[in-house]
Amino acid sequence: MADSWVGLAGRIGSDLHLDLEAGGRGSRRAVLGRALREAIRDGRLAPGTLLPPYRSLAADLGLARNTVAETYAELVAEGWLVARQGSGTRVAPRAKPAGSPRTPKAAPARSDPPAHDLRQGLPDPSSFPRAAWLASARRALNAAPGEAFGPGDPRGRAELRRALAEYLARVRGVRTDPGTIVVCSGSAHALRLLFSGKVLRGPLAVESYGLPFHRSILQAARVRTVPLALDEHGARTTDLAESKGVRAALLTPAHQFPTGGPLAPERRAAAVDWARAGGGVLLEDDYDGEFRYDREPVGAVQGLDPQRVVYLGSVSKSLSPALRLGWMVLPEHLVEPVLRAKGEREAWAGVTDQLTLADFIESGRYDRHIRRTRQRYRDRRDRLVDMLARRAPHIAPTGIAAGLHAVLRLPPGTERSVTKAAARQRIALDGLAHFRHPAADAPAEDGLVVGYAAPADHAYGAALDALCRILPPPSGTV
Amino acid sequence: MADSWVGLAGRIGSDLHLDLEAGGRGSRRAVLGRALREAIRDGRLAPGTLLPPYRSLAADLGLARNTVAETYAELVAEGWLVARQGSGTRVAPRAKPAGSPRTPKAAPARSDPPAHDLRQGLPDPSSFPRAAWLASARRALNAAPGEAFGPGDPRGRAELRRALAEYLARVRGVRTDPGTIVVCSGSAHALRLLFSGKVLRGPLAVESYGLPFHRSILQAARVRTVPLALDEHGARTTDLAESKGVRAALLTPAHQFPTGGPLAPERRAAAVDWARAGGGVLLEDDYDGEFRYDREPVGAVQGLDPQRVVYLGSVSKSLSPALRLGWMVLPEHLVEPVLRAKGEREAWAGVTDQLTLADFIESGRYDRHIRRTRQRYRDRRDRLVDMLARRAPHIAPTGIAAGLHAVLRLPPGTERSVTKAAARQRIALDGLAHFRHPAADAPAEDGLVVGYAAPADHAYGAALDALCRILPPPSGTV
Repeated sequence: MADSWVGLAGRIGSDLHLDLEAGGRGSRRAVLGRALREAIRDGRLAPGTLLPPYRSLAADLGLARNTVAETYAELVAEGWLVARQGSGTRVAPRAKPAGSPRTPKAAPARSDPPAHDLRQGLPDPSSFPRAAWLASARRALNAAPGEAFGPGDPRGRAELRRALAEYLARVRGVRTDPGTIVVCSGSAHALRLLFSGKVLRGPLAVESYGLPFHRSILQAARVRTVPLALDEHGARTTDLAESKGVRAALLTPAHQFPTGGPLAPERRAAAVDWARAGGGVLLEDDYDGEFRYDREPVGAVQGLDPQRVVYLGSVSKSLSPALRLGWMVLPEHLVEPVLRAKGEREAWAGVTDQLTLADFIESGRYDRHIRRTRQRYRDRRDRLVDMLARRAPHIAPTGIAAGLHAVLRLPPGTERSVTKAAARQRIALDGLAHFRHPAADAPAEDGLVVGYAAPADHAYGAALDALCRILPPPSGTV
Repeated sequence: MADSWVGLAGRIGSDLHLDLEAGGRGSRRAVLGRALREAIRDGRLAPGTLLPPYRSLAADLGLARNTVAETYAELVAEGWLVARQGSGTRVAPRAKPAGSPRTPKAAPARSDPPAHDLRQGLPDPSSFPRAAWLASARRALNAAPGEAFGPGDPRGRAELRRALAEYLARVRGVRTDPGTIVVCSGSAHALRLLFSGKVLRGPLAVESYGLPFHRSILQAARVRTVPLALDEHGARTTDLAESKGVRAALLTPAHQFPTGGPLAPERRAAAVDWARAGGGVLLEDDYDGEFRYDREPVGAVQGLDPQRVVYLGSVSKSLSPALRLGWMVLPEHLVEPVLRAKGEREAWAGVTDQLTLADFIESGRYDRHIRRTRQRYRDRRDRLVDMLARRAPHIAPTGIAAGLHAVLRLPPGTERSVTKAAARQRIALDGLAHFRHPAADAPAEDGLVVGYAAPADHAYGAALDALCRILPPPSGTV
């Protein structure tokens, strides 16, 4: 018996020595506890092993007896060791996990980054205005009242809702006051709250081309979606009156996503008329309303009737999708139901970013940032259009008056082979088929959705070049 | 006809003058557009009203003709106006919303702040380390690679997951690597992902006293909860083996919430044994693991078997619940299911706070902040205990070795009248009944859950004083 624990003390001693050398923060007791846990984890101290009396170990290691005694007690409290009166302290039978000592497994492999990133919807990450954002953060955090760091208003910080109410009225023609704005993490979060939280019910009319992740959120909420046909005037909202049972419609009026046109005035009016006549609700996804190049922005439909429209916006295109910061402007009667659906502990944007964005907007930094990036994306769009005119004049870019992407119309039947070629060349982009509602009536059209904002400046030329090389030749030349 | 639009032009002109004076940013065209929209909204320009020809309005206002023509075209595009060849431009029939001109309704009334805030679970908001946080934000944002502002890894930033893996191992005995950590907004978000996302299935064993909002999240996910009895050794995990069908158990091993004791070593072992034997999963809510006052912290159960325990933590107690920043440490086989449940656009913490917290931890600022607040909360606890010993020695405070709250055991049958008295005095706190599982077997015990962290330093004495005044007198003295 004496022999066995003397040997063990030696082993523990040397292990501990190693760990004491390796350092790490904390008292000697903390270091000793860590070393013992490690030895048990690794299997160096097997379940059932008798530990040396704390006096012996203390002597071997040159530690105070109390230090070792307290460490033992602590590991007993944590379930690593068991102590029985008169029979000493042993490694607990279940302390070693089933299976062999675990070597940390590599993180699940993520796919390699693309050679050229022409995905839609992504702003150039290098355009994030770090210095200006930090300046606003400093000002906002220093000025914030203490209660800002308490549990807070589930609608989001009042500072931000005030700034947004003023900004959205000025820039997007949205009619609101801070009481009807609810801060969230973006349009996906908003749709989940509205439909999984049963604030709104389906069936929901959606544009026959739209974001697949919107459809999957709605599917998860068991909301049936009914596709609305699109034509050169945008979504055929005039069909809403004939869609039996539809209670809400999700639209992208400023810039149809992804095909790119604004909703025609009479279609805007028809949508509002439908909502008024039948108690319906319009969801206006104003995902890139600030980025219009060839004329002033088209104002929000929300301004036509704030009591019939839920307006959704975010900073995902204007600043960064990584901020996870967005907002809903709600009809008054929906504010309380949304807050109930959100719940007091629901995920929402952190207070530091909310306060920072409020200052960023009110200081005029947001306007300046938008102007700068708008100019930059306009230049990129022009380069794309020029490149096509020179190298692929048979391919018509459409939806180019606004946004961070264009649609390249392809000859019928060619989209699949082109997107396959893109995948082979590691060009990240999607074909129109990716966005098409599975129940859409009209025949599928061939096209590529080309985002021109994501690549860094130095990489954009090469990305355009790679794109041109996978485009199909003019028909008749093959 | 000429008369009507001349008068109108005058009216529009004066309105515009006001608005041009009021200023606002943007070109003259933007200002004109805004003024027209406002006039239509307010009803000053009624639906159907004929507008003056743009030449006349331009002359009246001293603007270029093009400016007015473009503004008209824009408002037509937005649906405010309708233009018909040969019949001029009119205010669109539906541009004025149903109902009278809307005066912004006051925000829904929120209840007044309490006179004394003794709610559990809230750190003192004034303890938020603004300067240190900003210093970390500056360092982290300046050092971050460009891709940090792109869509990012759904597990959360690698910088933060690395810092957490090291920190949790060192301080809480958690065994993990960055690949098995998923950043989220806190334990509520984690439970929703795990159960509404069908990563785990019920029935779920929960402690018979626990957080009501946890139970409501589980209810929303249609997960049946089965209460586990509590005694002086914590939750009776030894009963798990007899709970037929239970597949997971939610525990607060370091500091039972809210009653306050640590889970006894043999109960920790029993929980892990149960999970191993039947393929069960333990959910370890380590909600205030850093705040232990009278001895070293009890390590996490997760360290006993990382493949059977989902470990949940957050900064809600240590820094601020307003940051909405937490983490799950997952068994390897649950990482991909959680990411699927999360979805690519699910709400999660913003990148700036993630990067900032990573630096905050790695720079040692987090440790310093914890040490400082721990000392502060220990002092507050001591003041509470002293006050009770002097003024209400018949009331036993329990669960005081750790955390941000204590439980004051009350004479049987008195809790309801005491919490009513608290409400009358506007003292915010909860009785034990608030936390009791509706299906709990054991008879309800009377007690108050008193959070001692939330009040500002200067307000704490008055809060304790107010508390003492509502406590029931010793039995036999009434």
